[in-house]
Amino acid sequence: MDTEIPQLRLGFIGLGLMGKPMAGHLLKAGYPLTVHNRSHAAMDELVALGAQAAATPREVAANSDVVITMLPDSPDVEAVVVGPDGLLAGARPGLIHIDMSTIATTTTRRLAELEAEYEVKHVDAPVSGGDIGARNATLSIMVGGDEYAFVACQPIFEKLGKRIIHIGPTGCGQIAKACNQIMVAAQMVAMGELLVMAQKAGADPEKVIDAIKGGAAQCWTLDNKPQRLFKGVRTPGFKASMQYKDLNIVMDMAKAYQVPLPATAVNTQLFNAMIVDGLGDFDNSAIVSVLERLAQIQLKTNEQ
Amino acid sequence: MDTEIPQLRLGFIGLGLMGKPMAGHLLKAGYPLTVHNRSHAAMDELVALGAQAAATPREVAANSDVVITMLPDSPDVEAVVVGPDGLLAGARPGLIHIDMSTIATTTTRRLAELEAEYEVKHVDAPVSGGDIGARNATLSIMVGGDEYAFVACQPIFEKLGKRIIHIGPTGCGQIAKACNQIMVAAQMVAMGELLVMAQKAGADPEKVIDAIKGGAAQCWTLDNKPQRLFKGVRTPGFKASMQYKDLNIVMDMAKAYQVPLPATAVNTQLFNAMIVDGLGDFDNSAIVSVLERLAQIQLKTNEQ
Repeated sequence: MDTEIPQLRLGFIGLGLMGKPMAGHLLKAGYPLTVHNRSHAAMDELVALGAQAAATPREVAANSDVVITMLPDSPDVEAVVVGPDGLLAGARPGLIHIDMSTIATTTTRRLAELEAEYEVKHVDAPVSGGDIGARNATLSIMVGGDEYAFVACQPIFEKLGKRIIHIGPTGCGQIAKACNQIMVAAQMVAMGELLVMAQKAGADPEKVIDAIKGGAAQCWTLDNKPQRLFKGVRTPGFKASMQYKDLNIVMDMAKAYQVPLPATAVNTQLFNAMIVDGLGDFDNSAIVSVLERLAQIQLKTNEQ
Repeated sequence: MDTEIPQLRLGFIGLGLMGKPMAGHLLKAGYPLTVHNRSHAAMDELVALGAQAAATPREVAANSDVVITMLPDSPDVEAVVVGPDGLLAGARPGLIHIDMSTIATTTTRRLAELEAEYEVKHVDAPVSGGDIGARNATLSIMVGGDEYAFVACQPIFEKLGKRIIHIGPTGCGQIAKACNQIMVAAQMVAMGELLVMAQKAGADPEKVIDAIKGGAAQCWTLDNKPQRLFKGVRTPGFKASMQYKDLNIVMDMAKAYQVPLPATAVNTQLFNAMIVDGLGDFDNSAIVSVLERLAQIQLKTNEQ
C-alpha cells in the first residue's frame, strides 16, 4: 500500500449523475481505473477517457486494489457485493471497498462483516454536495472505517472532495450523512412553512427572509434557496426523490437503533406527498409546493 | 416630531428580563422616560437611574409621545392598551405605540385598528436576540407599520438593536417573528434528533456535528449550541417556555390565516412535552432532553 499513489489500481462501480464525474476526476489524476455500470453509455464515455470497462463487479475487483461504489440505495450496494459476479467473488485479501453511496448503517455494518471474512476492508464514505460538488470535486466526504483504511484512502478522497472528515469506525460515515439529512430536511420544510405563512398572513416573503436570515434562524438553506424560489426556479440542485430516499434510510435507522424521530417522520411524509404529486425530480426546496397546496396559495415569483 | 430626538418623551411598560435593560439604554441615551411595571422592584431600579414611575399605563401614555410595550403575550398587551387605566385612556392624538412584545398578528391588527380610532399609531416591532441582545443593545428588530412611523421610531430602535428591518404594514413585524420561530424551532428539534441518533447508532456526536456543520446542514443553531450541550450546559440563552409561547402564537396564526403547518405542529408538541417535563426554564436547545427520554439515553458530556 506504500507504492506510489497513482500506481494504486482503482475500480469504480456506478457511473450515474454523481459517479461519472467522480470517476473522471480519478482518471485525470492518473489512476489506472476499471469501471462498471449497468447501462453502457456512461462506461463508454469513461473508456474514451482511458478507463478499462468490466462486465461485472467481480471483474472490477479482480483488476483493483481499491473499489469505489456509488449507487442509489442499500439493495444496489448489496447486489454489487455478493453473488457469483459480485465484488467479493473477484476480491483478493487486502482489497479496500469504499462505498460512497448513501445507505443504511445497518446494511453497511452487515456488508463490512461479510467483507471482513474475505479480508476485504470496508470504508463508508457518503458525500454531500450533490452533482455540482461531484463535477467540481468539492464534495464533503463523511468517512467511517479504521484509521489505517482512512489514511490509505485519503489521497483518493482529495481528488473528489474538499471537506474530508473521519468520523469513526465502520458505519459512522453513514450515521453522519443520516444526521445531515435530518437537519437539511428540517430546514427545507421549515422554509416552506414560513414562506407560505408570510405570504398568506400578508407580509412580503422576500423581506421576511432578509429579516430573519441574519439572526438565530440563519442557515445554509435560507442563504441559498429562497432567491431561486422567488425567481420561480424549482429545478435541482438536489432532487427531492433523493432527499426522500435518504429520509427513508434515516427512518429505517430510527427503527433499527430505537431512536424515535417525531419531526423527521413528518418531514419524511411531506416529501412522500411531494413524490406522490409527481414532483420528485424537482429540487428539495420545492417541498414548498406541498405546503402551497395545503394552504391553497402559490408563492409569489419575481420577473427574471 | 422633528424636535431634537432626545426631547421626545418616551414611556416604557413591561420591565422584565428584556424590558428592563432596554429601558435602561433609552435612559442612558438621554430620553425622558416614564416607566410602568406590574411589580415595583424593576421600576425602582429605573427610577434610581432617572426614570419617572407611573401607577398605570394611562399615566405613562399621558406623559409620553411614544410608548413602548415589552410584555409576555397577546392578552398582556391587550390588557395594557384597553380599559379605564389603559394606554388609550391616557393617549393624545399622534401618540405612537411601539409594541416590541412577540404576540399574534391577529391581536396586533385588532389593537392597531382600535388605536387608529384614537389617532394613535401602532408599530409592531418584535425582536430576536434574547436577554443577551437586550443587555448589549444588539437585538434584531422586525418592524411592521407605515413608513412615516418607522422613520420616526428608527432613532429609538438604534439605541436597542443592530439589525433593524422594516418588513411592511402593521402586523408584518409579528409575521416575520413568527416565521423566525418556525425555523428556529425546526433547527432545535432537528439538532436534538440528530444528536440522539448519532450517539445511539454509535458515532461520536461531536465529530458528527463537526462534519455536517460545514455543508448544507449549516445553521446558527449547529454553530452555537452543540458545544454548550457537550459541556452539559442547558441553561438559557432563550428559555424553552418562551419558545413554546411563541410556537403557540405561530399555531394560532396557522389557524387564523389557514396555513397548515405539519412540521411546526410537531415541534410545538415536543416543546409542550418539555414544559410538561418541568424543563421550561432551560434553553430551547435543551429540547434534546425530550428526545433523549424518548430514546432512553443521555447525551455524552465532556469534562469542563
